[in-house]
Amino acid sequence: MAYSCELIHKDPSGARAGRLTTPHGRADTPLFMPVGTKASVKAMTPEELAGMGVEMILANTYHLWLRPGHEVIRVLGGLHAFMNWKGPVLTDSGGFQVFSLAPLRRITEEGVSFRSHLDGSECFLSPETAIEAQEAIGADVIMPLDDCTPYPADRLYVKDSMELTLRWAQRSRRAHGISKANQTTSTVRPGQALFGIVQGGMHADLRQESAKRTVETGFDGYAIGGLSVGEEKGLMYGMIDAAMPHLPASSVRYLMGVGMPEDIVEAVERGVDMFDCVLPTRCARNGTLFTSKGKLVIKNSLYAKDPRPVDEECPCYACRNYSRAYLRHLYMAGELLSSRLNTTHNLCYYMRLMKGIGEAVKAGRFAEFKRRFYEVRNPGAA
Amino acid sequence: MAYSCELIHKDPSGARAGRLTTPHGRADTPLFMPVGTKASVKAMTPEELAGMGVEMILANTYHLWLRPGHEVIRVLGGLHAFMNWKGPVLTDSGGFQVFSLAPLRRITEEGVSFRSHLDGSECFLSPETAIEAQEAIGADVIMPLDDCTPYPADRLYVKDSMELTLRWAQRSRRAHGISKANQTTSTVRPGQALFGIVQGGMHADLRQESAKRTVETGFDGYAIGGLSVGEEKGLMYGMIDAAMPHLPASSVRYLMGVGMPEDIVEAVERGVDMFDCVLPTRCARNGTLFTSKGKLVIKNSLYAKDPRPVDEECPCYACRNYSRAYLRHLYMAGELLSSRLNTTHNLCYYMRLMKGIGEAVKAGRFAEFKRRFYEVRNPGAA
Repeated sequence: MAYSCELIHKDPSGARAGRLTTPHGRADTPLFMPVGTKASVKAMTPEELAGMGVEMILANTYHLWLRPGHEVIRVLGGLHAFMNWKGPVLTDSGGFQVFSLAPLRRITEEGVSFRSHLDGSECFLSPETAIEAQEAIGADVIMPLDDCTPYPADRLYVKDSMELTLRWAQRSRRAHGISKANQTTSTVRPGQALFGIVQGGMHADLRQESAKRTVETGFDGYAIGGLSVGEEKGLMYGMIDAAMPHLPASSVRYLMGVGMPEDIVEAVERGVDMFDCVLPTRCARNGTLFTSKGKLVIKNSLYAKDPRPVDEECPCYACRNYSRAYLRHLYMAGELLSSRLNTTHNLCYYMRLMKGIGEAVKAGRFAEFKRRFYEVRNPGAA
Repeated sequence: MAYSCELIHKDPSGARAGRLTTPHGRADTPLFMPVGTKASVKAMTPEELAGMGVEMILANTYHLWLRPGHEVIRVLGGLHAFMNWKGPVLTDSGGFQVFSLAPLRRITEEGVSFRSHLDGSECFLSPETAIEAQEAIGADVIMPLDDCTPYPADRLYVKDSMELTLRWAQRSRRAHGISKANQTTSTVRPGQALFGIVQGGMHADLRQESAKRTVETGFDGYAIGGLSVGEEKGLMYGMIDAAMPHLPASSVRYLMGVGMPEDIVEAVERGVDMFDCVLPTRCARNGTLFTSKGKLVIKNSLYAKDPRPVDEECPCYACRNYSRAYLRHLYMAGELLSSRLNTTHNLCYYMRLMKGIGEAVKAGRFAEFKRRFYEVRNPGAA
C-alpha cells in the first residue's frame, strides 16, 4: 500500500476527521501517536498499545541513529520487525533532538555537527543523512531535517533559521528521490511518505511564509514544528492559526510534540489532524495521572489508603484492577509495575480523548464536545 | 479452604510430587515461587504470572511492614486484593531481611531492634509482631521470625542462634493461636498455615537437631533456612541431606531462597518440594537470561545483530516475538521493556524447569531427567 490520506468529515468548528493509509495499515485522524523514542513506547508491549486503540507510533531517528544504529535496524528487517510493531510508524528527523540533547552543536549550510549525548563522539547529520537513516529504519512517514528555532529568538535569527529549514526541505525531497515539481512519491522508497515542516518561531507572518513556501516545495503532509517550546498557550494557538490557512485542506496537518489534552482539543478545532507527545508516558513514570477531571499526583499521601481506582469511568487495566493506594505504594517503592500501570492509564486516557474527539467531529458536535471537556475539568478535584 | 498438603508421587530417586491446598487455591509441588518482595513480582502483572504457570508467589513481610505498612494492607482487604493476585501467597517473616538489610540491628531474647533501611527510624520485630503483621497481610502460608545464622560462624554462635530460633518458633506458634501440642491449625486466623524453619548453620549435627526439635514443636510444613549464604554448593547439599530424614514425609519441605536451576534439581532429588528465589527476576533486570544450555548475557556485543530468539525452544512471549539484537538494544538503552521481556523469559524458564521436574517425578524418571538436564548444559555455548 502506498501512502494516502483522506478527509472524511469536517465539523462546523473547523475540526476534521479522516484517515491515513500507509504501507503498514490505516490510522484514523485526529490521531495521537505515543512516543517510542528508542524503538519502544516505554514500559509497553506493541500488543498492549494496539489493545488500547493506538494505531500509529512515533520513533526518534536521532536516538536510533546513535543506538543501535540505522544499519543494524535495516539488517534486522526494519523498525517494524525489530520492535514487533505491525502498524504505521512516523520517525522524526532528529532535528529537535540534536538541538535539545546534543552538546556543542554547530549548524552550517551543509548540516549540523554535534557530539553524541551517549559517548561524546563526533557526529554529523545533514538533510541527506537524515533521509538515508529514515529510509533504513523504514518508517511509513518520515520527516526532513529542520532547524528547530529556539524561543525566545529575535526576528532576524528566526527568519534565517526558517530559510535554512526551507533549503533543507528541498534537499530532503531530492534525497528521497523526488525531483519533479508535482511529484510527491519517492522513487527511492516507494510508499514512504515525506512530510514538510513549518517553522517561523513566534512570528505570525513568518509562520505564514514558511507554510506557503513549504507547500510550494510539495510534501505528502505538513507538520508544524517549533511550538510548545516554552511559549504561552495563546501564542502557540496563534501560530497554528497563522499557518493553517496556507496548508492544503486535502493534506494531513501534524502538530509536532504537542501536547496537553487541552492543547489537542484547541488544535483539532483549528484543523490539526495528528499529534505526538511524550506527556502521557513521561508523566506516568513521574506518577502524574490524567483524568477527565484533571491531573492526579499519585504520590500524594491522600491516596495512601484510598481503595478507589484512579478514575471510576476509565476502562483501563489499571483502573479495573488496582486501587489508588496500591498505585501509590508501587510508585513510592520504585516498582517497575508502577510505570506500566501508570502508562497504561495515561495512554488509555489519551486514546479515549482522541476517540471522543473523532466521534464528536463525525457527528458534527465538536463545539459541544469542547464545552463539555472544559466543564468537567477541575484540577483540584481528583 | 483450609491448608493441607498431599504427597502424590515418589520417584525412586527420592524426588517427590504433590499438591498444596490453601484458602486461595492449589499449587502443585515441586513448586517454585517467584518473589514479589514489595507486593509486586518486579515488572510483571499477576495475569502474566498466572499465564506462564506460576501458582504461588512469595512476598516479604519486612518490606511490607515498613511500606506501606501491614495495617494499610489489612484495611485494603489483605495482600491478595491489594496486589490483585488470586492464587496462594507465602510471606517470609522478615528475619532474613532484618539480618541482611537493616543497619544497627540488635538481637535480644525478646526480638530484634533495627533501623529501617528506608528512613533510619527505629523498629522492633518480635516473633509475635511478625505473626501479627503476617496475619494482617493475610498470606496463605506464613513463616515464624528466625535468627538467620551468618556464614561463616563458629559452632557456639551457630548453636546459640539455633536455640533462639527454636524458642522463637514456640512463641510464634502460640502467637498464631496454636497452644495444644498436637494442634497445628490457627484459632486466630483459620486456614493460614505456619511453617517451621530449620537452622543450624553448616553443621550437620545441628541441622539434624534443629530439624528434630522444630518437628517436635509442630508446624504445618517445614522450611530449611540459612542456606545459599555464601557456602560451597556441596556444603549446602550436605546440610539438606542432614535435615531431610528428620522432616516428616507427609509435610511439605521448603528450601528458602534457593536457587540456581541446578540447586533446584539437586534439592528436589533430596526430597525438597518448594523453592523461592530472586534469581530469575533479578538476573533478568541485570540482563542475564537462563536457557537449557546455560546463561546468556544479553549485553554481549556478540548479539548486536543476532536475529535469533534467546532460546529457540522457549515458548515465552519474548522468544516468540523478539530477537537477541532487540533485547540487547533494550538493555543497553535502559528501556523498561527490557526488564519486562527478560523477566518473562527467565520466569518462563523456571516454570518450564519445574514442570519438567514434576512430570519426570510423576513418570518415575527423575534420574533420566537429571542426566539430561546436565547433558545439555554448556555454559559457553549460548
